[in-house]
Amino acid sequence: MNFSSKLLEEAVAEFAKLPGVGQKTALRLVLHLLNRDVEEVQKFSSAVSRLRNEIQFCQTCHNISDTAICEICASPRRDHGLICVVEDTRDVMAIENTNQYNGVYHVLGGLISPMDGIGPSDLQVDSLVERLKENNIKEIIFALSATMEGDTTIFYLHKRLKQFNINISTIARGIAFGGELEYVDEITLGRSIVTRVPYENSLS
Amino acid sequence: MNFSSKLLEEAVAEFAKLPGVGQKTALRLVLHLLNRDVEEVQKFSSAVSRLRNEIQFCQTCHNISDTAICEICASPRRDHGLICVVEDTRDVMAIENTNQYNGVYHVLGGLISPMDGIGPSDLQVDSLVERLKENNIKEIIFALSATMEGDTTIFYLHKRLKQFNINISTIARGIAFGGELEYVDEITLGRSIVTRVPYENSLS
Repeated sequence: MNFSSKLLEEAVAEFAKLPGVGQKTALRLVLHLLNRDVEEVQKFSSAVSRLRNEIQFCQTCHNISDTAICEICASPRRDHGLICVVEDTRDVMAIENTNQYNGVYHVLGGLISPMDGIGPSDLQVDSLVERLKENNIKEIIFALSATMEGDTTIFYLHKRLKQFNINISTIARGIAFGGELEYVDEITLGRSIVTRVPYENSLS
Repeated sequence: MNFSSKLLEEAVAEFAKLPGVGQKTALRLVLHLLNRDVEEVQKFSSAVSRLRNEIQFCQTCHNISDTAICEICASPRRDHGLICVVEDTRDVMAIENTNQYNGVYHVLGGLISPMDGIGPSDLQVDSLVERLKENNIKEIIFALSATMEGDTTIFYLHKRLKQFNINISTIARGIAFGGELEYVDEITLGRSIVTRVPYENSLS
């Protein structure tokens, strides 16, 4: 693109580095910012810069937090004997939104992915093992994506954690609620038949 | 959404104000920034803030520029007797990319749109009239979108400009090059039959 201004070109280049944002979208976003008030744009810019400079990660569960220990880990109403292992903060938010979980979390910060050069040492695995050693944990739930990377991570973690005498579970897989059978992929459908549950259990 | 951090929530809210960016996309972009180096995020943030604070608009054509007079208006190789009237800087970039135009531009900064409360006084109309008074302009080309707002703007400008003894033209409308006839809408196809051109002219 032929930019008439260096400042414009720089701003577009920065936006175009964001995932899923191409040159054209970046230009649209930048021109939108140009039309907004100076104070509003300043607010945008400082929100981004403060986010990166001031944000903290909970020392226990490694979730994004404004404090050294996050609200969930600090809450006495939570069941601290139950740890749900997730990939990132989005998964914590998704599970919190269900209002079905009362334990605490452990945010790995990614999944094992040899293709992307991400190994166990890049994730919060050691700190999970430490948590299990020190505290009185009854159960670990793996809530990871049902992908190759998610399964690899669960396999690895299971090997590391089975030395402890705790229950290890994964979230249930099967057809989604409201899902029509004809659109379900074969693997999911096949596995959901193999791992069928007694009807009484499915009602609770 | 339940955010675990106020900083995160603010940054997501700021991103979600951008056009076409919802809460989920905003969160994805913000988490992406969190994973980048501090310096990179600082570069992003300062590019945005400098853009808004330091950018200038060319005093002649009102295009975005780093200088008081933009490169195009300052170029002696351009035909300054030919003015192409466009909506915004994106249109200038699009026309420049064609390498088919050697005149100068006039950026209106929008289109007349009573529904959005945008009238002629909100656009760079008076300065266009001034340019025509002062300089030796031979032709004005309207390169505006073929929408209701674009047509309204052309209609209004034509009324204001016909007092001057200059040629007024609009860019050609018709079916696009490479366009298949069966997918062309009826209005475009109908008009392109009415405004058909001699075959010899279509070759140049």
